[in-house]
Amino acid sequence: MKKILFLLVVVVMMTEGQTVRYIPKHGELKYTFGGHAPVLVLKPGTILETWTEDCYDGAVTKPTDMPSEVAPIGRDNPQTGPFFIDSAQPGDVLVVHILDLSPAKDHGISSHYPGFGTLTGTEYTALLTPLLPEKLWWYEVDRERNVVRTKLETHVIEIPMRPFLGCIATAPQRGEVRWTVTPEAYGGNMDYWEVRKGSTVFLPVHVPGALLQIGDGHLAQGEGEIIGTAVESSLHVRIRVDVIKGKSILWPRVENDEYLMATGSYRPLEDAFRIAYKELVTWLTTDYGMNTMDAYQLCSQVGIVDIAQVVDPNYTVVAKIHKKYLPSGKSFGGAHERMKH
Amino acid sequence: MKKILFLLVVVVMMTEGQTVRYIPKHGELKYTFGGHAPVLVLKPGTILETWTEDCYDGAVTKPTDMPSEVAPIGRDNPQTGPFFIDSAQPGDVLVVHILDLSPAKDHGISSHYPGFGTLTGTEYTALLTPLLPEKLWWYEVDRERNVVRTKLETHVIEIPMRPFLGCIATAPQRGEVRWTVTPEAYGGNMDYWEVRKGSTVFLPVHVPGALLQIGDGHLAQGEGEIIGTAVESSLHVRIRVDVIKGKSILWPRVENDEYLMATGSYRPLEDAFRIAYKELVTWLTTDYGMNTMDAYQLCSQVGIVDIAQVVDPNYTVVAKIHKKYLPSGKSFGGAHERMKH
Amino acid sequence: MKKILFLLVVVVMMTEGQTVRYIPKHGELKYTFGGHAPVLVLKPGTILETWTEDCYDGAVTKPTDMPSEVAPIGRDNPQTGPFFIDSAQPGDVLVVHILDLSPAKDHGISSHYPGFGTLTGTEYTALLTPLLPEKLWWYEVDRERNVVRTKLETHVIEIPMRPFLGCIATAPQRGEVRWTVTPEAYGGNMDYWEVRKGSTVFLPVHVPGALLQIGDGHLAQGEGEIIGTAVESSLHVRIRVDVIKGKSILWPRVENDEYLMATGSYRPLEDAFRIAYKELVTWLTTDYGMNTMDAYQLCSQVGIVDIAQVVDPNYTVVAKIHKKYLPSGKSFGGAHERMKH
Amino acid sequence: MKKILFLLVVVVMMTEGQTVRYIPKHGELKYTFGGHAPVLVLKPGTILETWTEDCYDGAVTKPTDMPSEVAPIGRDNPQTGPFFIDSAQPGDVLVVHILDLSPAKDHGISSHYPGFGTLTGTEYTALLTPLLPEKLWWYEVDRERNVVRTKLETHVIEIPMRPFLGCIATAPQRGEVRWTVTPEAYGGNMDYWEVRKGSTVFLPVHVPGALLQIGDGHLAQGEGEIIGTAVESSLHVRIRVDVIKGKSILWPRVENDEYLMATGSYRPLEDAFRIAYKELVTWLTTDYGMNTMDAYQLCSQVGIVDIAQVVDPNYTVVAKIHKKYLPSGKSFGGAHERMKH
Repeated sequence: MKKILFLLVVVVMMTEGQTVRYIPKHGELKYTFGGHAPVLVLKPGTILETWTEDCYDGAVTKPTDMPSEVAPIGRDNPQTGPFFIDSAQPGDVLVVHILDLSPAKDHGISSHYPGFGTLTGTEYTALLTPLLPEKLWWYEVDRERNVVRTKLETHVIEIPMRPFLGCIATAPQRGEVRWTVTPEAYGGNMDYWEVRKGSTVFLPVHVPGALLQIGDGHLAQGEGEIIGTAVESSLHVRIRVDVIKGKSILWPRVENDEYLMATGSYRPLEDAFRIAYKELVTWLTTDYGMNTMDAYQLCSQVGIVDIAQVVDPNYTVVAKIHKKYLPSGKSFGGAHERMKH
Repeated sequence: MKKILFLLVVVVMMTEGQTVRYIPKHGELKYTFGGHAPVLVLKPGTILETWTEDCYDGAVTKPTDMPSEVAPIGRDNPQTGPFFIDSAQPGDVLVVHILDLSPAKDHGISSHYPGFGTLTGTEYTALLTPLLPEKLWWYEVDRERNVVRTKLETHVIEIPMRPFLGCIATAPQRGEVRWTVTPEAYGGNMDYWEVRKGSTVFLPVHVPGALLQIGDGHLAQGEGEIIGTAVESSLHVRIRVDVIKGKSILWPRVENDEYLMATGSYRPLEDAFRIAYKELVTWLTTDYGMNTMDAYQLCSQVGIVDIAQVVDPNYTVVAKIHKKYLPSGKSFGGAHERMKH
Repeated sequence: MKKILFLLVVVVMMTEGQTVRYIPKHGELKYTFGGHAPVLVLKPGTILETWTEDCYDGAVTKPTDMPSEVAPIGRDNPQTGPFFIDSAQPGDVLVVHILDLSPAKDHGISSHYPGFGTLTGTEYTALLTPLLPEKLWWYEVDRERNVVRTKLETHVIEIPMRPFLGCIATAPQRGEVRWTVTPEAYGGNMDYWEVRKGSTVFLPVHVPGALLQIGDGHLAQGEGEIIGTAVESSLHVRIRVDVIKGKSILWPRVENDEYLMATGSYRPLEDAFRIAYKELVTWLTTDYGMNTMDAYQLCSQVGIVDIAQVVDPNYTVVAKIHKKYLPSGKSFGGAHERMKH
Repeated sequence: MKKILFLLVVVVMMTEGQTVRYIPKHGELKYTFGGHAPVLVLKPGTILETWTEDCYDGAVTKPTDMPSEVAPIGRDNPQTGPFFIDSAQPGDVLVVHILDLSPAKDHGISSHYPGFGTLTGTEYTALLTPLLPEKLWWYEVDRERNVVRTKLETHVIEIPMRPFLGCIATAPQRGEVRWTVTPEAYGGNMDYWEVRKGSTVFLPVHVPGALLQIGDGHLAQGEGEIIGTAVESSLHVRIRVDVIKGKSILWPRVENDEYLMATGSYRPLEDAFRIAYKELVTWLTTDYGMNTMDAYQLCSQVGIVDIAQVVDPNYTVVAKIHKKYLPSGKSFGGAHERMKH
């Protein structure tokens, strides 16, 4: 495998400039995290302008299209990439600062797929009871008012638009290749709304080049994503990548101007919750010099939890803390501050 | 049992006025939800002024007191009440509007009790590994700046004061009597910060008179209450009670000027999460005329989740929605609007 | 409360003989664990002959009776007792040796109640999906062949009869009173088939007299009791009671000639599993002098797990070990050996 | 990827005879399920004689070797294969009948690895508490008495030898490649003791050729494998493979002369339990013509549950039923009966 990867790597062009643009053809989209040769090599510091397809693989094109009929099987959450980040080695941290995200289509889509969601029996919460019907909601993108809008039976709803990447991943640890619907320690389909403009995402590096993939743009989403989908859309993406050497993390983290955010993606929900908070406590002890019990106490009083999603094969929980409660210290050597300019 | 209760009931005084004051003696505090004769009968519409002891039964009086040494066993979360609400019958809804809460002592206390908390083995997550040490943090109450303050090894932290009732309960269903540390369908130790000034709490009524109990004041708390305690304190309490006839709920709900909030308290965390969201969806269909799939969709895009606590014998999750997304309709016949004046 | 109990206690007759017979009238059956005055005081060593009603409160009397129509609400799992065991004090262990159990009716009943069971949404695994229909199976008791028999659409099934007590409980800890459908540290509705003739059950004592209750006879049951009920029946019961002073247990245990069995009843299923195995490891270290890591290793290689039920408000898991693998030692001072004669 | 696989496939020799022998060199062992070119193509009906390395990659060679020191990272549960089964296509069922398994070394090994096991904090049940120490037990293989034997501090234990394959897998669905410690719908590290001599294993086929892998021999194991390992060993293996066309299964199944067994491998443990029983109920309806409610009822009364392991990234539960309770019918067209001769 390694030799084959190498052969493919050498044919991609090493980028030299500050900003690189890559718009995938449909055939270049990927349907697993890991297992793919890179489409581009990026030097640390490079700005990447790219595009992501929606979670339906672009197959739902009008309000009457039912995903079960038009979306090809095995083509969920198509990914753009992977991008080989030069110098990234296993044990390093990949840093992705999100400079901009904007809707690439004039609509967003949400649907319920029978057997997928929080309030239904599923593939794993296996029951003998009937399922709910398939149903699709078509959202109009109103760029001027920065909302998405759809008509329910009772009323029209307008929801503030907050574009974010549902998927952001490095290649998984232990040589694994994972379905693009599954989040885990490599990131993946975390469906977390703070992976948006102005945030810096930290991902563990498990293979040379990290092999960054992104996809599954959302324009709006509630906590838990309980019906199984957000307001799904295609996105224009502008990110800057970097590598932190000599520092390891076990699970993805996010930082913005106000918060440190630690993610955990597993089952049961208790375990995702435990992972997220343990990572946050650990962050406070390693980067801010707090002792464990004080960090535990601080999180107990000012910690905030975001329940990103409770529908995917693993659930995603985020524990976060406002920076105003922290002692002096720098997270990842000040990477977020440095990258946002 | 019923006859005995009746005999005790007749000796308490029926309140007649608009505002009633009841300050319990220590011996009048209760250590279970249910199982007690009422201390007072309140007419619907009455304002009650009362007081709650802290979760340590008031036994921790200085920073060097260790709860395991000074706090009496079986005296956790002492409750004030129960209050018999006149006319409340099983199947009704008890309404409690919180007019005011303020700290009744000049300090708050938080501690870690070995074997209790999110990031440790516990009585139920039974492991063979060692526990963490007992530790106590003493918080100063600064009324002027409206913060609580404590000194950690690395720095002093100040946290905005947000007094709320950790416990609010009616007598449990099915004749149960429950430990004051356990939340369930009757409410109880939900440790939810929106049970505060300006909120209206809706509780299921399972016995004549509802038998309202309150206690376990918190001055500040993070999501999950992961170390096992909030900033615990004694509170001055001012509430108004009312009864809604002919409408039933399965789990407690909360409403304030902005949000509808549905609670679920159970294990595993997935189930508490499912209960909370199912109750919220149900609320939208019964009080706002939405169809189930539309309500499910709406919650999926704008629902918010508060993880109240992941430490008690049952975990508490709250699903909420901002009222701006709702069609016309009135929650509980407009009880919140009516009671806040 | 304590004073009231005392007054009631003095009116019951202290039993003097070796064998006592108590057959409850229907009005004497109890519908909670805890919260009741004793019906009888038994000296340690006494043999009790008694009778238990079926889980339907005896209301289902023919194959066409649907429990949802004929069984009174709040009358699940009626209990016989409580029995006050003289000398039993909090912190002691109540010992119940089962001398004989036999069916007291000529039929057994199983049914599915919509929203209760393993493979359906439930009160706690709260979903928006439809439920399964109510359905009842009527089993004929064939004493000669020692089987129960019913006719399915495809064929007649005969199942070996193995009468056991679905419920056996002491009064709960912390002053709790619990629904008769819920098992916990006090025992209760564990639905465990080894609570049968020849077994010795050890229960924690939380109140003076222990206040033993039994009920919910089963004639046959699979692991998990997944449809929500076993082959339910009324039983004739013959047990001997005893008290072990100066030894405490946290959760119920069972012993027969071959096995040590430790139970755990909680949610999630992982936690019930952890409790059961931790209790078994602890048993090996306290009564058999093994070190913790060796006991952990031994259980890992020869431990057996019985999944009693995965349908009640708490799930019940039993971890057990065959005695042939144990070093010399005596469980509870040889109580099982002593009591079976 | 597909083209690359094809090129590798053509260089392996198509087996023609009835019995084929393949003993892997150490460098040919695999450390993921999926992602590998086949080592051999087998025609349906072929008998394969092969060998599996122990879970420590053979690196622990004496009682004083600590796995954390001598076992290479990322080399857990080495797999033999994959074997391309001619004619197997996605949607078919791969059948593996186990003709013989016997220990290939004179010892078995069990150890506790800190942070892995049921009664400890783990990578996923992430806690702040300390871990248990690493410890290894060396078992002597006594072929004459058919036991494994080790010395504990208190006594020597002898455990009947019951060799089985801890791992048996096809390539995962959705193009995934998984760690050899993780079981899922493809089978994998189920650690289930009925995958032994005399059993027939049915596995879903997700890729052309199925790509069967086996490994992780166990000589003995308790239910749950709670310390994290069984009595681990290298095995001589003799199996017969076959393919069933036009019949699909979602999760692995096992059949022997007495039982039908359906597996589920997921988290939480409730979900693994639900999957296993739903699969068993489904088996009874599809192959034995039972209606769903009758099959649910039958499983509720005579179903048996084996808890294979509660330590891996997914937990494995097996629901089984004795064939004497079934109506006439044939499981998989009588494949088990046919293949055992």
